[in-house]
Amino acid sequence: VTLPDVDTPALLLDADALGRNIARMRDLVAGSGLALRPHAKTHKTPRIALMQLAAGAAGICCSKLAEAEVMVGGGIMDILITTPVVGASKIARLMRLAHTAGIRVVVDDAVGIDALGDAAAAAKVSLDVLIEVDVGQARCGVPPGQTAADLAGRIGRHRALRFAGLQGYNGALQGVAAFEERAARVRASLDLLLETAGLVRKRGIEVATLTGGGTGSSAIDLELRGLTELQPGSYVVMDASYAKVRDRGADALPFERALGVLATVVSRPAPDRCVVDVGWKSVSVDSGPPLVAGHPDLMFEFAGDEHGKLRSTAGAVQLRPGDRIELIPAHCDTTINLYDAYTVMRDGRVEGLWPIEARGRTQ
Amino acid sequence: VTLPDVDTPALLLDADALGRNIARMRDLVAGSGLALRPHAKTHKTPRIALMQLAAGAAGICCSKLAEAEVMVGGGIMDILITTPVVGASKIARLMRLAHTAGIRVVVDDAVGIDALGDAAAAAKVSLDVLIEVDVGQARCGVPPGQTAADLAGRIGRHRALRFAGLQGYNGALQGVAAFEERAARVRASLDLLLETAGLVRKRGIEVATLTGGGTGSSAIDLELRGLTELQPGSYVVMDASYAKVRDRGADALPFERALGVLATVVSRPAPDRCVVDVGWKSVSVDSGPPLVAGHPDLMFEFAGDEHGKLRSTAGAVQLRPGDRIELIPAHCDTTINLYDAYTVMRDGRVEGLWPIEARGRTQ
Repeated sequence: VTLPDVDTPALLLDADALGRNIARMRDLVAGSGLALRPHAKTHKTPRIALMQLAAGAAGICCSKLAEAEVMVGGGIMDILITTPVVGASKIARLMRLAHTAGIRVVVDDAVGIDALGDAAAAAKVSLDVLIEVDVGQARCGVPPGQTAADLAGRIGRHRALRFAGLQGYNGALQGVAAFEERAARVRASLDLLLETAGLVRKRGIEVATLTGGGTGSSAIDLELRGLTELQPGSYVVMDASYAKVRDRGADALPFERALGVLATVVSRPAPDRCVVDVGWKSVSVDSGPPLVAGHPDLMFEFAGDEHGKLRSTAGAVQLRPGDRIELIPAHCDTTINLYDAYTVMRDGRVEGLWPIEARGRTQ
Repeated sequence: VTLPDVDTPALLLDADALGRNIARMRDLVAGSGLALRPHAKTHKTPRIALMQLAAGAAGICCSKLAEAEVMVGGGIMDILITTPVVGASKIARLMRLAHTAGIRVVVDDAVGIDALGDAAAAAKVSLDVLIEVDVGQARCGVPPGQTAADLAGRIGRHRALRFAGLQGYNGALQGVAAFEERAARVRASLDLLLETAGLVRKRGIEVATLTGGGTGSSAIDLELRGLTELQPGSYVVMDASYAKVRDRGADALPFERALGVLATVVSRPAPDRCVVDVGWKSVSVDSGPPLVAGHPDLMFEFAGDEHGKLRSTAGAVQLRPGDRIELIPAHCDTTINLYDAYTVMRDGRVEGLWPIEARGRTQ
């Protein structure tokens, strides 16, 4: 199979670049004393999670219970679910999963702790629980301060629960392009988490794990050495948004683009535009339009479910129907979640399809 | 199974409302002389397409060849593919499909016509071809005027092709809220299509089908009687965007909401907000945030892949973790495309799951 034989839209994954990204993150973290727990919500594929584990990751993160179920089915045995698991039916599923694999969960209120504690006792499982602290994202989590210490104590009173530490993730600052601004904000978030951890420890409660961070903050988190565990996701494949994020010295982050959406020109109705077979159903829109690889003069405009328009800033569009282009998604996670499989490239050739087994597993 | 047992996020489909919408469109079109060819890109489900056919639809539309393959697999035998089919591999698939079912395709250039004509001759199939005319959308399609007549002549010179008519779809005006403004723009687009059809007929070429229209323009198209065939999609389930579109006399369109996304509150970290388990991976963002059914005071804000924040315009948020709410997607098509199945409700009870078999079928 060669590339012209791949029907479009196709989600291309460069296995060579993927492997290099996984190796680079391993090398960055090596010797730091921090554990690496990559976030599988990005790739949603047990096969890639196993590659990360083979490169020294301590375990993985999942966003949702259903994602974790797929990962356990794929042989991954150490998973942190990074959003609250709420409701009787889901807690029952969580207990079934905890019988099979090592599962850690986050909570941010007393009712949630008691529900988990009672269910774990009834199911005779021991569950590691982390308290989520809101370190600036204004999403889930208790505010920094004594509330976390109170909840840690409450976890300790449930025999089937073990208080494992704190999660403090600030997604909003991962994408701050300028290194120094991002570093300052990462430090401020970390200070809130460390202060809170100190309050918990003052009660004589061990705080084994401080987990958080992402692709944008990894280098900073490794320097600061406040977290015990990193949760980066996007570094495995990267996207157009992270391509704008600068490392120290204004370099690009040390990860390569491994992802693209192959598109076909299906119409060229006027000299100033052509139309490709990719719209909202084939590349995600949440973080803006994709870029056109190798064509900096071409701007992509969404034009419905199944259409995108390419306009040129440099005169007439030279593409013709049947021509192929590769789009660089603005956001990797949500684009991957639109596809059932990666079309995997190695050495410039199509190697085959890798099913995205946790695609759509949001429950 | 009762609703509290449904894990969230879940895509709810009210089968009663769905059935009423299908019946209402049948009644609207009945006696008009126009054919109804609903667009299956909205629901992506052969079972629903069969309900539409049972209610008198002449056939269905699909956006993509892969969608049509799923529909033929589900027993639908008359399909118009509304975007160009380009490239040798796809044309080969098209020919295989045309051996099994009645497939019509659109083209907008001479190269595309010759590729289809040569392939159809080689495959010994007879293919109905429509020319897409750009009636104001500035997407695919030849400009109104003589080009369409030239291309119709070219289609006629291929023995394996039959020129079946013109497609003129203007998606941009479907969502114009004010009836009179929308009606004026529908008339203007239709005039361009009729003028072009006149030029084709002047060459002695029959123009059997003039196809187009959508949920927003259906009533207007039925009054104008210029089209021979309507392509509405969203009316089967509706969404928050179409809920704003007015009918004559400023009434709502005569279709009901049959779709929702069931969400669970997973955190209530502050009096002014709570967090639900629905983000970009569970409800589409292309047309704006969803509404919260029954809670006009609650505003949904996207907060990442798997989180949404609800804020109240009327003081503290009264919801607590574990509470369920139903979101009304801003755009039905792209939200449905995120799910593998509908959770089908009938008489207020969960009837079961209907697989969304063409989900993700963008090739």
